[in-house]
Amino acid sequence: MTDTANPALFTSEVSAKGVRERRFDVLRGERRVPGLLWTAADDDTPRPVVMLGHGASGSKGEDYIVALGRRLVRHHGLSAVSIDGPVHGDRRADGSLDTELAFLDFAAAWSAHDGLIDDMVADWRSVLDAVQALPEVADGPCGYWGLSMGTIFGLPLTAAEPRVAVSVLGLMGISGPTKERFAADAAQVRCPVLFLMQWHDELFSREHAFALFDTLASTDRRLHAHPGLHAAVPAEEFEASARFLASYLTV
Amino acid sequence: MTDTANPALFTSEVSAKGVRERRFDVLRGERRVPGLLWTAADDDTPRPVVMLGHGASGSKGEDYIVALGRRLVRHHGLSAVSIDGPVHGDRRADGSLDTELAFLDFAAAWSAHDGLIDDMVADWRSVLDAVQALPEVADGPCGYWGLSMGTIFGLPLTAAEPRVAVSVLGLMGISGPTKERFAADAAQVRCPVLFLMQWHDELFSREHAFALFDTLASTDRRLHAHPGLHAAVPAEEFEASARFLASYLTV
Repeated sequence: MTDTANPALFTSEVSAKGVRERRFDVLRGERRVPGLLWTAADDDTPRPVVMLGHGASGSKGEDYIVALGRRLVRHHGLSAVSIDGPVHGDRRADGSLDTELAFLDFAAAWSAHDGLIDDMVADWRSVLDAVQALPEVADGPCGYWGLSMGTIFGLPLTAAEPRVAVSVLGLMGISGPTKERFAADAAQVRCPVLFLMQWHDELFSREHAFALFDTLASTDRRLHAHPGLHAAVPAEEFEASARFLASYLTV
Repeated sequence: MTDTANPALFTSEVSAKGVRERRFDVLRGERRVPGLLWTAADDDTPRPVVMLGHGASGSKGEDYIVALGRRLVRHHGLSAVSIDGPVHGDRRADGSLDTELAFLDFAAAWSAHDGLIDDMVADWRSVLDAVQALPEVADGPCGYWGLSMGTIFGLPLTAAEPRVAVSVLGLMGISGPTKERFAADAAQVRCPVLFLMQWHDELFSREHAFALFDTLASTDRRLHAHPGLHAAVPAEEFEASARFLASYLTV
């Protein structure tokens, strides 16, 4: 953690089946970054944290994010944290929960707003500082998991943040308005990576996904592909993700 | 098992760490099919069997085959069986253990001998009949695992043998002297498949491997790719193979 870490401001909390879930905000200058933190309800020993980045149209609290966060705590000896992406969840000025609207707003922002990715990377780093300041979250090596928009932000984060020791990325390629940046970032990634792709992805082409996998500088990387459209990632890859992250973050 | 099953003729046996390994021959007409069978040393309940097909230049008893067979018995509640491919191991008339010679002889036979694949498929089916006749091997659904030459024979076997309920294939594409047959066979495969490939395979191109994965009729299939040359399959895929096979063959 850095010296300037702002604390996570907790606003609510609930525990179930051994997992404590806390809603928090971290303030970074004028920005309020809303998040959820999952830790063990009955274990205070510091555990490495995995940052979970949701996809476009989703939020920090969507079902697969919560399920993965809880799984990492219950079965893999880790903690997990999720934040809303820009124009998503509690970050929306209009308070809308319309998923199509969030998707369109994100697509527009990705094209129009130069600082979108750098802002989100800085948000993640502030949140990492804040949660690693807690006694129940371990300092040092952490993990990242995020597909699609979760990779649009997570690939640059993995490239920029030396504490990210292992990363699950995918459902994305070297494409879109910031493709040059993705190519440069991918060439900086040296940690172990599990890259997930959908064989019939209608949003990001197979060739662009292969190009991203190819460009990663990690010697330790693997690609898992399944038939089906963009959003059809099967349950076995969430299990594989959890096992993969834990294998590098826990003894 | 069929009514005409010839018994496995056991010639030697050794047990270590809970795994019983038996050397056997099965006679199919004029052909003697030499194999190894791995079962639990201390458990007589019938277990599903996984057929293990080695790659060109290897044999039924090469290290990674033995290690996988023992792993399936020790950690996954299965049994396993391996046989020598044509012009390999104990099938060599000249008794040579030269791996380069076996590789070259196989390459020549693949091009020259029309019945090579059908003969090997029939060998496997006879061996499956024979081992399923044993009380410690379960009737019915079984698995197949084989890469490279193990897929050259294992893909047609998986297509032809209805008892094969799950298959691990890979390091091969729709290519070579029998590529039309592979395309037709792949389109007949409907069981769950784990397909392994090496991203920098010097023997079978990425595109031909993708074409094979694409042609499989299995809705339940996944592709795992790793950087590196043909033979550099990492340990994690042997673990993934074992978990994958067990998940479909055991309760």
